[in-house]
Amino acid sequence: MAGELLSDLGTEIIIPICAIIGIAFSLVQWVLVSKIKVTPEKSPADNKNGFTESLIEEEEGINDHNVVEKCAEIQNAISEGATSFLFTMYQYVGVFMVAFAILIFLFLGSVEGFSTKSQTCTYDTTKTCKPALATAVFSTISFLLGAVTSVVSGFLGMKIATYANARTTLEARKGVGKAFIVAFRSGAVMGFLLAANGLLVLYITILLFKLYYGDDWEGLFEAITGYGLGGSSMALFGRVGGGIYTKAADVGADLVGKVERNIPEDDPRNPAVIADNVGDNVGDIAGMGSDLFGSYAESSCAALVVASISSFGITHDLTAMCYPLLVSSVGIIVCLITTLFATDFFEVKTVKEIEPALKNQLIISTVLMTIGVGIVSWIALPSSFTIFNFGAQKEVKNWQLFLCVCVGLWAGLIIGFVTEYYTSNAYSPVQDVADSCRTGAATNVIFGLALGYKSVIIPIFAIAIGIFVSFSFAAMYGIAVAALGMLSTIATGLAIDAYGPISDNAGGIAEMAGMSHRIRERTDALDAAGNTTAAIGKGFAIGSAALVSLALFGAFVSRAGISVVDVLTPKVFIGLLVGAMLPYWFSAMTMKSVGKAALKMVEEVRRQFNTIPGLMEGTAKPDYATCVKISTDASIKEMIPPGALVMLTPLIVGIFFGVETLSGVLAGALVSGVQIAISASNTGGAWDNAKKYIEAGVSDHAKSLGPKGSDPHKAAVIGDTIGDPLKDTSGPSLNILIKLMAVESLVFAPFFATHGGLLFKLF
Amino acid sequence: MAGELLSDLGTEIIIPICAIIGIAFSLVQWVLVSKIKVTPEKSPADNKNGFTESLIEEEEGINDHNVVEKCAEIQNAISEGATSFLFTMYQYVGVFMVAFAILIFLFLGSVEGFSTKSQTCTYDTTKTCKPALATAVFSTISFLLGAVTSVVSGFLGMKIATYANARTTLEARKGVGKAFIVAFRSGAVMGFLLAANGLLVLYITILLFKLYYGDDWEGLFEAITGYGLGGSSMALFGRVGGGIYTKAADVGADLVGKVERNIPEDDPRNPAVIADNVGDNVGDIAGMGSDLFGSYAESSCAALVVASISSFGITHDLTAMCYPLLVSSVGIIVCLITTLFATDFFEVKTVKEIEPALKNQLIISTVLMTIGVGIVSWIALPSSFTIFNFGAQKEVKNWQLFLCVCVGLWAGLIIGFVTEYYTSNAYSPVQDVADSCRTGAATNVIFGLALGYKSVIIPIFAIAIGIFVSFSFAAMYGIAVAALGMLSTIATGLAIDAYGPISDNAGGIAEMAGMSHRIRERTDALDAAGNTTAAIGKGFAIGSAALVSLALFGAFVSRAGISVVDVLTPKVFIGLLVGAMLPYWFSAMTMKSVGKAALKMVEEVRRQFNTIPGLMEGTAKPDYATCVKISTDASIKEMIPPGALVMLTPLIVGIFFGVETLSGVLAGALVSGVQIAISASNTGGAWDNAKKYIEAGVSDHAKSLGPKGSDPHKAAVIGDTIGDPLKDTSGPSLNILIKLMAVESLVFAPFFATHGGLLFKLF
Repeated sequence: MAGELLSDLGTEIIIPICAIIGIAFSLVQWVLVSKIKVTPEKSPADNKNGFTESLIEEEEGINDHNVVEKCAEIQNAISEGATSFLFTMYQYVGVFMVAFAILIFLFLGSVEGFSTKSQTCTYDTTKTCKPALATAVFSTISFLLGAVTSVVSGFLGMKIATYANARTTLEARKGVGKAFIVAFRSGAVMGFLLAANGLLVLYITILLFKLYYGDDWEGLFEAITGYGLGGSSMALFGRVGGGIYTKAADVGADLVGKVERNIPEDDPRNPAVIADNVGDNVGDIAGMGSDLFGSYAESSCAALVVASISSFGITHDLTAMCYPLLVSSVGIIVCLITTLFATDFFEVKTVKEIEPALKNQLIISTVLMTIGVGIVSWIALPSSFTIFNFGAQKEVKNWQLFLCVCVGLWAGLIIGFVTEYYTSNAYSPVQDVADSCRTGAATNVIFGLALGYKSVIIPIFAIAIGIFVSFSFAAMYGIAVAALGMLSTIATGLAIDAYGPISDNAGGIAEMAGMSHRIRERTDALDAAGNTTAAIGKGFAIGSAALVSLALFGAFVSRAGISVVDVLTPKVFIGLLVGAMLPYWFSAMTMKSVGKAALKMVEEVRRQFNTIPGLMEGTAKPDYATCVKISTDASIKEMIPPGALVMLTPLIVGIFFGVETLSGVLAGALVSGVQIAISASNTGGAWDNAKKYIEAGVSDHAKSLGPKGSDPHKAAVIGDTIGDPLKDTSGPSLNILIKLMAVESLVFAPFFATHGGLLFKLF
Repeated sequence: MAGELLSDLGTEIIIPICAIIGIAFSLVQWVLVSKIKVTPEKSPADNKNGFTESLIEEEEGINDHNVVEKCAEIQNAISEGATSFLFTMYQYVGVFMVAFAILIFLFLGSVEGFSTKSQTCTYDTTKTCKPALATAVFSTISFLLGAVTSVVSGFLGMKIATYANARTTLEARKGVGKAFIVAFRSGAVMGFLLAANGLLVLYITILLFKLYYGDDWEGLFEAITGYGLGGSSMALFGRVGGGIYTKAADVGADLVGKVERNIPEDDPRNPAVIADNVGDNVGDIAGMGSDLFGSYAESSCAALVVASISSFGITHDLTAMCYPLLVSSVGIIVCLITTLFATDFFEVKTVKEIEPALKNQLIISTVLMTIGVGIVSWIALPSSFTIFNFGAQKEVKNWQLFLCVCVGLWAGLIIGFVTEYYTSNAYSPVQDVADSCRTGAATNVIFGLALGYKSVIIPIFAIAIGIFVSFSFAAMYGIAVAALGMLSTIATGLAIDAYGPISDNAGGIAEMAGMSHRIRERTDALDAAGNTTAAIGKGFAIGSAALVSLALFGAFVSRAGISVVDVLTPKVFIGLLVGAMLPYWFSAMTMKSVGKAALKMVEEVRRQFNTIPGLMEGTAKPDYATCVKISTDASIKEMIPPGALVMLTPLIVGIFFGVETLSGVLAGALVSGVQIAISASNTGGAWDNAKKYIEAGVSDHAKSLGPKGSDPHKAAVIGDTIGDPLKDTSGPSLNILIKLMAVESLVFAPFFATHGGLLFKLF
């Protein structure tokens, strides 16, 4: 029809097939992980001479039933805490979501006065489109669908992680390689499930909506954008709530445990220790899962909505239209092959091989994906087509679009490696920060902040080049597919990202179960690599968020009917200035929230140490549940104001100041937020690893700063504590701030375009 | 001629007269300060029963010649150190300035290929203007003039401050009121000298240039912009170099003295103590002087260059053209009256009256200035005129321009009060930060950072409203006069700003001269008020910088011949993104520089404590000079890279990427830099005063956190040390970054417009 090799039928088959393969692969991994039992096996060795049978040096304490039982018990406690927090959160957020869904319906319905009559299309005025009321209804439905998919994604991720952590601990008894495989496979379960699930739900939604919309693709894909908004709104609360939860518990546990009582991290005597481990799962796992799912949903929506008003949509070319989904489909297959490199083709045997194995995942997936994108671009795109470019149509070649996707893909890899350089203690930046601990906490903080600021430079240039190339080739569609390119390897990205908190938890469980120092060393080695991959994951999340929100911004501007956002007009400039301020406002709120929640936790932990006799001696058990409850209550309460700030700003600006000012706000928030997000998460990561560098004492330099408890180490602990809210609460939440404001503006664009700018209309 | 009440002759008389009155007033204040002798008087009381004659309780140790001699000695040491640093710095920067002047000449001369022929004007193409070569020559001259004026301003300020500090200490023996008057008068000397000098030099330069340019006002005022560039370039090095100097010395002295050796601040045994006091004078006084002079010069230039292509310039209406200078002239008179309120009309008698007296200065000057601006607008402006607005002429009424100036003036006051609220320990924000010290340095830092982020909100809204009003009324000319409005009370602003470091030094001298605890308490009270006024001064500097750089940006865009800066083009957007990154890059450099220089200082101070026998016991004298030298060398070396970043960025972007991308960079740096600058200086100020709050222990709450040496106090000291580079180095330098890049772009605009954008031309 339009000259591409892949038929529409082929497209209709490939997408669901790839999604199903992804889900199946994830189930296989799950089965493999579940083979490790956390219930003591009634083996013949279960007698007094059990120990004589396990003389193999590696397999330490393999038959110690007490340990296994203890692990199971701790795992249950963590899982229960996490489930209870998430359910409480979902209840509160659910109310909000329903209210917001009603708002969407009312606002979008009012665009044409709730008329049920068909109307002329927005872009192609020669045609007739479905009524605005239909868009209102379907946007609301897709919003709720996106929110539910996000909830499912986050919840499943958490369940998998808490299922895997104790298993990783137990496998660590057999050696570091075995433990690595478990943690990594569990990460893969989450990664593939999320990627495949997101794709499948989106695809099915499109098919179902098409039953009503028929040939009105403009309306169809406008309604689909609600899916992105739903996913991101949920992600916002997940990130902020989870972020506050995890850091309140972590900071609280550290301040009393490590600093005041001088007991090690994850010591079972610390009452906040379970809350701390729960936090890793609700913040890093569920939060990150929702976040990346949101990015993925939004970039797909942004690409689809622009495509629908380009030649793909105008000529109803389904295969080309589904190009974004095809890229994601191929991504799943590529990531599947990549995963086999870590689990089957090669084997991790020693501690030194862990970090390279994880890094190779990134490189392999990027290289393979480049080939994959090439194939998709070749078979699914006509050799030449036009793309909507702020009022005009711009001609684009298929190889140009291929380059757009690649530039995003490779920019992601560059950001990943720069992040690694600035946050891994194998390189000089973190070592310099560690060295500055000699002169105390103040120089540590000064050097750490400077490191974070500096780490912004290369990622920004990478993003800028990516934007320039893709923008020049294919306008906003180019940006959207560049974002998709960066996210096309999301399954692998999430796998190595989830691996971090699972290993962290595994270490915690080993400590709490009273396992030997050697086991703890193995899990620590897994965890140290995990810190770096977590930072890389955050780098990806931020980089893709920047591209996604720019693409959404472009789609919003198109939909709002403005073709120029001129900085030289007062309306736009004040938007830019205030927009650039929003990330600061938001960070102030979230950081203060963590501080306040942590203080409450500190009081409770102190109270327990002071009032429970025998707690310090290990003869009495602390009251873990109260700490879990404090974290839950505080984070639910504290997530409301920052959440409201992000959700309400586009509405207030759009309604009272209009679309020009809103454009300024979006651009300002984007360019300012990206910087703070990158610097905050790298500063935090660097402090964390500077502390770990001193603790591990691998080199002579590191030894001269240690050991644990020395003055430089104490200074490093202070830096680490300050970094906690930066890297796990305010930094990563900022991604969502910039994405969410953009997608929300896009969804409400029809309303703002008709009824917005009240204040300027009045004067 | 155009309907205004004031004749051209009147204008020509009023401006120089006001400037001369300002200089005369400043000399009178100087004479009053110089009456306090720092050489012991051979009075009849100079005998053994001298003490019996001074029984008045207030006048403690008034005749102790040892103390007076010691004060004089310390004052000399500080003055010599500061002079030596400034001279060294001027040598290095001088070379740079000459090189840059040559660059300006070559670049601007090459616009028309160094042709000496007249050319058609840029804006009014029906007329003939002077050749581009003339603009090159005169821009170079005005650049050098601006640089020299800035040097003189900074140097004189430093001289006055070091002249006044010991005198303040000595007067503190007679009571807090007497000491206050000395410190305040000395600040006024600097404020009036700078304001009047800046105005006079600019006015004379215009008159002289006019001899050549005649009726070609377009070329005349284009050449004058070099004055702003010169002033700001010098200010950049002054701020960065001085900022690194002062904080390296301060942090170095504190880390060893307070933290390791447990000796008080300003203890004469600390080898870095003289360097620390020198730093206050070169960083806060000379740096701030150059900075605000630069802002003043730039906003005047921005207003003049826009006016020259508006109806004022087209119809050669001298009085209206000189409106910006008339506003500044009236400002000098208003500030003169305001000063009398503090020195003559009312008298400060107790500690409690200090802060209100300083705050009243702000309110009185703002109220009086509003009346002053009203008069000037009424007599110096035609009732209606047109202003150049990106290619078109926009009609403006005189009352609208009056409102533009007022909105800037009052926005400045709001920023001042918000800054006070967030940094004074009389209010809850700082008290909350102090309270968070209970749980250690980490929570202190988290709360402090959150406070800084939060303190951005209201100032940004104030600036945004100011921009919106002035932009809507009178386009870029409105912004420029709003900036001038904010700076019109610069004499008072500088007076209360310079008062801070003078009091700080006075306290240092009292401590070093071994004066009694009561004297130290009095100087501490002066100093605490000074911390807040210093923060207010920084708030003004940042607010005005934002407006100034927007005005310059507008002038640049006009001169570069672009009428739209569209965010929706890739060239502009990547500029915006990279521009928003620059303040981070710059801060990373300056903070790391302070850290590195401080580490060197720490090593030297430790070395002296370890190798000089009897130093801790006070029997041996430390080697102050080496510490002064270390600070000097380190700051000179470290100021080059950040300075080069700021100076070279506009050139590189303009030459290789062209004016659109440069516009994006300027807008991005502006909207992102303002936020970091405000948050950094308020965070630092809050930490400083949180520490002072605990030390002073005035309330029950404060007492529960203290005394000096308690754990919360130690945590507060760490916060204070981290805040030092934020509030005195990177934060305030960012003002200059955003202003300087804008004014540099403006000066080079003709070159960029003809020869820029090489890279895009190639591809």
